[in-house]
Amino acid sequence: MAQAGRRPGQTETRERILDAARQRFGAQGYSGATVRGIAADAGVNAALLHHFFGSKQKLFVAAMNIPVDPEVVVPLILSGPVEETGERLVRMFLGFWETPDGRAPFLAMLRSAATSEPAAAMMRQFMEQAVLAKVAEARGIPRTRVAAAAAQMMGVALLRYIVRVPALADATPDELVKLLAPVVQHYLDGDGS
Amino acid sequence: MAQAGRRPGQTETRERILDAARQRFGAQGYSGATVRGIAADAGVNAALLHHFFGSKQKLFVAAMNIPVDPEVVVPLILSGPVEETGERLVRMFLGFWETPDGRAPFLAMLRSAATSEPAAAMMRQFMEQAVLAKVAEARGIPRTRVAAAAAQMMGVALLRYIVRVPALADATPDELVKLLAPVVQHYLDGDGS
Repeated sequence: MAQAGRRPGQTETRERILDAARQRFGAQGYSGATVRGIAADAGVNAALLHHFFGSKQKLFVAAMNIPVDPEVVVPLILSGPVEETGERLVRMFLGFWETPDGRAPFLAMLRSAATSEPAAAMMRQFMEQAVLAKVAEARGIPRTRVAAAAAQMMGVALLRYIVRVPALADATPDELVKLLAPVVQHYLDGDGS
Repeated sequence: MAQAGRRPGQTETRERILDAARQRFGAQGYSGATVRGIAADAGVNAALLHHFFGSKQKLFVAAMNIPVDPEVVVPLILSGPVEETGERLVRMFLGFWETPDGRAPFLAMLRSAATSEPAAAMMRQFMEQAVLAKVAEARGIPRTRVAAAAAQMMGVALLRYIVRVPALADATPDELVKLLAPVVQHYLDGDGS
């Protein structure tokens, strides 16, 4: 009764949009879902949705609790000296994973993708379009090379933070940067060797 | 009633040992469980267990349905020209994962490790002792480098076969070998660069 007659505020509207987004992304995937459709489901117009979230990509990041916004992170990766991209990327990646709170949402995303095809489809399309395609285009290299670099880092996350194999779990972040940065750099240099 | 009075045969004894092994490995991990303890639980002597399975490692591989026996695979990886180890390893790894039947047990192991700490502990100890330590010792390189090579391949498996990111899922095995073999070789060469 306390809320009777209260007008829905910004928080309620935002939550309604996020709920609708989770439904649509879950049912149609990242590519299939449209901002217009999500707005309609939430009973708001597309302009209001844009006011709240800015873009389909940012809406996805918010709805899926993705801990990292590629619209922020990708430019950071690509800024600065080209020959230090590998080191910058590995340091940033380890930074996300190094604390239990930081890695929790990544773990949730990985576990969902490993056990549910709709979750895998969302992660797949999002990674390809929001991360791999953008880095590949900016650097003028094949997406496969960017994906191989991503695979290197995700494999380390798997073995260091989930399986906790001592050979990787006991290494310091600096040791890992020294080990992995040249490989990530090699892929992003795109020299094909 | 059909089985009344029937003496337990080899199959039953084998299954009883495997059940006991799963219990012990689950409760005590790969390092903590002993062949003697497993034999006692199964009501057989250690000599009979050795007759059936040969070693603790082989018993673990059988009990956990691990699709690959490191006692077979590690020597294969280490045989042949040293400068082709990267290519040999990547081809072998992709061979295991390339068919749905081949990757099913790997997927089961990964999913268990990602969601259960006892399963993660078993995978952790087994990888470290049966794979990483042996390759590192044979090559005279730090385990961390072998683990980084393993992480590269497991990350590719994750993105190619589970998340199915197009950049990796659409590549041919030969394209992946060309892309990944130099990196795996680099780690195993141990030149520290």
